Amino acid sequence: MAPVPTSSIDRLVESVADRMAEVNALIASHAGSDVTMIPEVADHLISSGGKRIRPMLTLATARLFDYRGDGDVKLATAVEYMHTATLLHDDVVDDSAMRRGKPAARMIWGNQASVLVGDFLLGQAFKLMVDVGSLEALDVFSSAAATISEGEVRQLAGAKNLSVGEDHYMAVIDAKTAALFAAATAAGPIIARAASYRAPLESYGRNLGLAFQLIDDALDFGGDAATLGKNVGDDLREGKATLPVLLAYGRGSAEDRAFWERCIERSEVQDEDVLKARDLVLATGALADTQARAQEFADRALEDLKSVPPAPMRDALAEVVGFAVSRLH
Amino acid sequence: MAPVPTSSIDRLVESVADRMAEVNALIASHAGSDVTMIPEVADHLISSGGKRIRPMLTLATARLFDYRGDGDVKLATAVEYMHTATLLHDDVVDDSAMRRGKPAARMIWGNQASVLVGDFLLGQAFKLMVDVGSLEALDVFSSAAATISEGEVRQLAGAKNLSVGEDHYMAVIDAKTAALFAAATAAGPIIARAASYRAPLESYGRNLGLAFQLIDDALDFGGDAATLGKNVGDDLREGKATLPVLLAYGRGSAEDRAFWERCIERSEVQDEDVLKARDLVLATGALADTQARAQEFADRALEDLKSVPPAPMRDALAEVVGFAVSRLH
Repeated sequence: MAPVPTSSIDRLVESVADRMAEVNALIASHAGSDVTMIPEVADHLISSGGKRIRPMLTLATARLFDYRGDGDVKLATAVEYMHTATLLHDDVVDDSAMRRGKPAARMIWGNQASVLVGDFLLGQAFKLMVDVGSLEALDVFSSAAATISEGEVRQLAGAKNLSVGEDHYMAVIDAKTAALFAAATAAGPIIARAASYRAPLESYGRNLGLAFQLIDDALDFGGDAATLGKNVGDDLREGKATLPVLLAYGRGSAEDRAFWERCIERSEVQDEDVLKARDLVLATGALADTQARAQEFADRALEDLKSVPPAPMRDALAEVVGFAVSRLH
Repeated sequence: MAPVPTSSIDRLVESVADRMAEVNALIASHAGSDVTMIPEVADHLISSGGKRIRPMLTLATARLFDYRGDGDVKLATAVEYMHTATLLHDDVVDDSAMRRGKPAARMIWGNQASVLVGDFLLGQAFKLMVDVGSLEALDVFSSAAATISEGEVRQLAGAKNLSVGEDHYMAVIDAKTAALFAAATAAGPIIARAASYRAPLESYGRNLGLAFQLIDDALDFGGDAATLGKNVGDDLREGKATLPVLLAYGRGSAEDRAFWERCIERSEVQDEDVLKARDLVLATGALADTQARAQEFADRALEDLKSVPPAPMRDALAEVVGFAVSRLH
């Protein structure tokens, strides 16, 4: 048997495959409704080949403490619904045409359906959480829901603005991405009643989420539509002042700064600008520094795991960290 | 002292005024965020003079059983947040320009902010419910959240369609309006641990909500923008096949049916069509029958109240029913 690669989600996938099959069945059944537009819209996105890392993290952190019950499957499903609801609303907010290499739901069913089906999935997520009956888990997820949307509004308020600064950027990704990762990894120890491990695992999730988002934002200047399911330069076209942009802008010549201002603040982006932007984030070291920042959070996530008892599942969680930061290579 | 009118919310307003002051304070404080766009958008709608009937119903149904604690105030605030979130998303879905006599939030801050601030308020609502710690209340409200959005999608799927039928219409208003009224009136007995009164009060709320929505839909052909805060004919312009329309369409001549098909199914509505539509719903008895249907649900709501011990608060709840159906006169 070939050695398991150390920067992969394969071991995570394998070690929760049995529970994940139940999650996938529950995802499909609870997105049902006699209002046919609901399963149509939900299935379009749900079956579009997302990696489902967040629900796997909930299953994995529960199994780490030998959790027995069905709360892990329900909370994992709730996590994926919350994530899907966020994507549906995000695509409306960003006017996105594509999602995971397919037309965004809003391009087929319209913005209205995307808003309302997102709301429906959020409602279903809370019903599943109530079903589990853990007020602590409900607390974590309802706080995450408020934090995620607060982060999205913060991002919207700072859109097309190069003077927002790195703190703003970090606050945005901490809220819109890391909060749900943190809730997903807190859920396991909460339902498994492993209270003393909640803090390190929640911290692991947050740091992993930050590393993930930093690399995602770096990937807007690399990779390609086929592997990413989105187009290189999408963030640029949407006027998102991500970290690579903020760093390159800060380090740029007057001419470079004028270029970024035109692209980000005035939304005048031509196809050739995407290549030029890529050159600039490479030449100024902005991309390398974004990657280094991601590695810092990855290191913190690995440090968090040291507080957790050694187990094959812990190794699987460590490999996810490697996967998060290796995607740029 | 003048006699209390029997079709008014005055007595309800008076009998929960002390607790409502706390609700209003909580509404203002929890809509806060250092992301300034959030309180701006939220306050625009929250301070726009809605009657806040739903939170008052929660306070009243808790006080009916001498509830002591702060759960009533928190759940009442959650109810108003859920309602506000729904309005923000509704305005996006309906492309509405006005809400309560003011420009809709989306006209000032854009659809994106309306979607995201709605999400934020929904998250805050769930946080407040978790704070109260009643899994039964959480169950009622999370189910209502899913039901409301399912009803909105059902309405969207049947928009601009005159063949949907009365059952479709009733299913829509039961979900999009009555479900939250029912949750609001179930919340009181739930937190006051008056378990045997949950069913009749939940039924009271549902029937009251149905009566309310039927009269609202009738008011699209009467009243005026000043008293309603919306323009007469708005539903018509949005292609909504409400009960008065469905009834008038079913009873109309070939020429009348062609008129309705043009207005509702092809969205070709001129200003003079609003007057013609009004004539038709009056002449065919569609408006009177809609009102009669509302009265049926009002009667059922009053019947529900008979299961509740006599008390001044019960009388106040009965007067709200009278208020709901008297608005058309």
